[in-house]
Amino acid sequence: MRFNITVRFLVLLFVCLNACISSSAQIITPANKPNEAQRELVERGYGMFIHFGVNTFTDVEWSDGTIPPGVYNPTNLNPDQWVLTAREAGFRYVLLITKHHDGFCLWDSKYTDYDVASAQVKTDVVKAVAEACKKYGLQFAVYYSLWDRHEPSFNDKDPQKYIDYMLNQLNELFTGYGSICELWLDGGWKRKPSDWGIDQIYQLVKQYNPKCAVSVNHTIVSEAGKRKAVLPSLMTEDNQYFFQYFPSDFRLWDPKIISKFDKKQYLHEGKSYYLPFEHTLCLSSRWNWFQKSAQLAVRELDELQELFYWCTDNDNSLVINVPPDRTGMIREYEALAVIELGKRLGLSENKPLPKNGTFISLLKPAEANSVFSEKDKIYSASYVNDGSLDSRWMAADTLAELIIELNPNDAFNKISIFEYQDTKNLPDGFSQVRNGRIKEYTIDVFTKGVWQTIYLGTEPMGDCKVIRLPKNYTASKMRFKVLKATAMPSLYELSVICMR
Amino acid sequence: MRFNITVRFLVLLFVCLNACISSSAQIITPANKPNEAQRELVERGYGMFIHFGVNTFTDVEWSDGTIPPGVYNPTNLNPDQWVLTAREAGFRYVLLITKHHDGFCLWDSKYTDYDVASAQVKTDVVKAVAEACKKYGLQFAVYYSLWDRHEPSFNDKDPQKYIDYMLNQLNELFTGYGSICELWLDGGWKRKPSDWGIDQIYQLVKQYNPKCAVSVNHTIVSEAGKRKAVLPSLMTEDNQYFFQYFPSDFRLWDPKIISKFDKKQYLHEGKSYYLPFEHTLCLSSRWNWFQKSAQLAVRELDELQELFYWCTDNDNSLVINVPPDRTGMIREYEALAVIELGKRLGLSENKPLPKNGTFISLLKPAEANSVFSEKDKIYSASYVNDGSLDSRWMAADTLAELIIELNPNDAFNKISIFEYQDTKNLPDGFSQVRNGRIKEYTIDVFTKGVWQTIYLGTEPMGDCKVIRLPKNYTASKMRFKVLKATAMPSLYELSVICMR
Repeated sequence: MRFNITVRFLVLLFVCLNACISSSAQIITPANKPNEAQRELVERGYGMFIHFGVNTFTDVEWSDGTIPPGVYNPTNLNPDQWVLTAREAGFRYVLLITKHHDGFCLWDSKYTDYDVASAQVKTDVVKAVAEACKKYGLQFAVYYSLWDRHEPSFNDKDPQKYIDYMLNQLNELFTGYGSICELWLDGGWKRKPSDWGIDQIYQLVKQYNPKCAVSVNHTIVSEAGKRKAVLPSLMTEDNQYFFQYFPSDFRLWDPKIISKFDKKQYLHEGKSYYLPFEHTLCLSSRWNWFQKSAQLAVRELDELQELFYWCTDNDNSLVINVPPDRTGMIREYEALAVIELGKRLGLSENKPLPKNGTFISLLKPAEANSVFSEKDKIYSASYVNDGSLDSRWMAADTLAELIIELNPNDAFNKISIFEYQDTKNLPDGFSQVRNGRIKEYTIDVFTKGVWQTIYLGTEPMGDCKVIRLPKNYTASKMRFKVLKATAMPSLYELSVICMR
Repeated sequence: MRFNITVRFLVLLFVCLNACISSSAQIITPANKPNEAQRELVERGYGMFIHFGVNTFTDVEWSDGTIPPGVYNPTNLNPDQWVLTAREAGFRYVLLITKHHDGFCLWDSKYTDYDVASAQVKTDVVKAVAEACKKYGLQFAVYYSLWDRHEPSFNDKDPQKYIDYMLNQLNELFTGYGSICELWLDGGWKRKPSDWGIDQIYQLVKQYNPKCAVSVNHTIVSEAGKRKAVLPSLMTEDNQYFFQYFPSDFRLWDPKIISKFDKKQYLHEGKSYYLPFEHTLCLSSRWNWFQKSAQLAVRELDELQELFYWCTDNDNSLVINVPPDRTGMIREYEALAVIELGKRLGLSENKPLPKNGTFISLLKPAEANSVFSEKDKIYSASYVNDGSLDSRWMAADTLAELIIELNPNDAFNKISIFEYQDTKNLPDGFSQVRNGRIKEYTIDVFTKGVWQTIYLGTEPMGDCKVIRLPKNYTASKMRFKVLKATAMPSLYELSVICMR
């Protein structure tokens, strides 16, 4: 519901508050070393992301703010089940979409009618999730879209009008629902960074909870003051890149993945600040975030497991999106997938997050007998073990092979391969049909002067193939040999790993 | 090498021996209850079958006895590696092909020149394997083909001529290579059962080792004295079927699989005898037994694991064929597959063989909305949980579904599905390309009045799909729903299982 009287009063209150906050140096927490909000973010490490809202009922990912609230109509809304699933799966926090780009609010906001209070099912979902988190011992985090395609003040020529709207809503969220450990802001590309009032938001949040970690999607750019985005996989040097949104406590770039050589120091006005990275991955093998009416498959557990290790390693964190469907519940087979993943990983609230083994192939000399567009060096063999899931080797021959030199003293017992997939986007603009190219292949090792095959794969690889060996090997070289492919073979990364 | 003088002497010796043996009631060990040879066979339970010989070098399965011994030419013969692999994989015995239908002997037999002594690599493979078994603490078993396509006496009009040849060779095997725990006889279909001298062979073997278990492939028939074979999966009643070859200590029918309701009592001349079953499976997903020059894929570990449980359960045993290649070694990726299998199963020489969980769906009412050729009842829904891997349900509609009623008090946490495969035989007459039909499907459970999907599969099922649930379920019904198939869906068996 909308109470216009309150708006003006609160805006006034915030102006006063902000004045007070600005005078307090303590409130600005980014620093050269991890602050407490950041230490806790890294320690939490693994959260369940929950996309739910009007889009859940429309089979689109980003609706434009015109869908009537009545469309939001879960038949069996059960946020308790969401959080119970999160606990069973070993997640340590829940990150809830409270408002997406469409502007529809999952709580009864005084500042808009575009919310659950106008829908048929009026349950305050933010409250229900916050309370379930308390009940099950998980921390509670909120996603809030800066970009708002419904709220009229968003289009006011005075940017502060909409900033005040956001401050009002965030005030509701941070005062009405207990402790919030993280604020995830999105859609910043729709305005100049300086027009979002990030500093005001940051100060408001820290006023209520200094340990709340705050960030805006696409946090970092390659040039100060310019919108030149930097892929997380390129963030391999300290003090090379710049804040786009300041202050922020962590880096975001949904759904990109950092390098194995991720660095943590970023610049703002000549000073260096520590920033961990929070990853966002979807459970769906179709890469959609809001649930669709059709049941879609989840990613392979092997892929999720390797990505878990990759994303939570090196003091970064990961949220996996597990969206409820139109009934208002997480689908059972999806719940089981994350629970099984947690079981495989051996997650326990009393233990630190588990780690992958040692990557013995990283940056070792790699050569392929075939490289696509070789002179351009954009698909070189060396990209296969450069620690980045964005760069890739691609062959010019479907029967290509690739050899990585290893230290013959380094034992290994696992190989993980991320294969490039041809993707076809579906009408929602997000969902992807993904098709690999490699259908048959071997992994060979060179030991005592001979090559021998230690794995023969005759099933399509999929996004990520994990080969676990029941004993340790050492070899001076390993070879990946394609026996059958439907297009030019291409690998993002091939890692030879020693699990302890 | 052939020493004709010795033949006559030994035949004479055997006639005497046989006369002595026949007068001793102790030597005939089949009985109404398990004898010691049978108890030990069941206790061993899990063996590595090794096919190696001239066929290894020809890409055929059954050669005709005319391949020159020079073709047998391993470049790096290493039987120690075979047995070491068997030990690492948790096998408890090794069953070696000493002579296949081609008649080529893997030891230097005095009674033929068609043996390793005539080849370039003269290593006595029987000796090497027997010694490696002793070294690594495994028991040693031999396969010996009755049918011999090389030995001239096989075609003599007096069947005893060739029986004597066999007795001579078996005498070599049983006196020259230490203790032999099992004798596996094959190819009996090429003569009348009474013309093989099975009783003479049996008596010879028992003379040397009373605890050696002896059997002939296709042991059991449905009518006494007739060649009416009975599938092992139909052996679900005691004293219903008859010995074809007597005496025998166990049943064989390579590579068929018994029913979950396997029975052990079989008739001979009005008396009932106890007979466990020994299964034979190949590691190759192409179902070939002798190694081929091309590297072929191994079966999925999930399939091997479920088959292990099925075959070793209920006091029966299993051998898995892991054939060396032309180098004379087991291929590394194949060795790793059985070692990984042993690790998954938790095999240990000091523990009994592991068991599958409880099958809570067995014989429960099953209904399908579509049955192929329904009036003939040859593909009824009830075949899907009848405990037989030979019978199957087949639908007449690619989008069929099948429902099994469950006891709502029975918990379960695993589902295994054996899908029928279309097969195409390759030129060797054995190797198969296997193609399933079901490409997408769900497993749904009916609980508290609603159906919910607990598994959504969007990859082809393969020979055996195993779905492990991270928590226990109870349901009054479970549904298997096909979402996409390339031909009429057909399942041999769907089992709902509770692992402890």
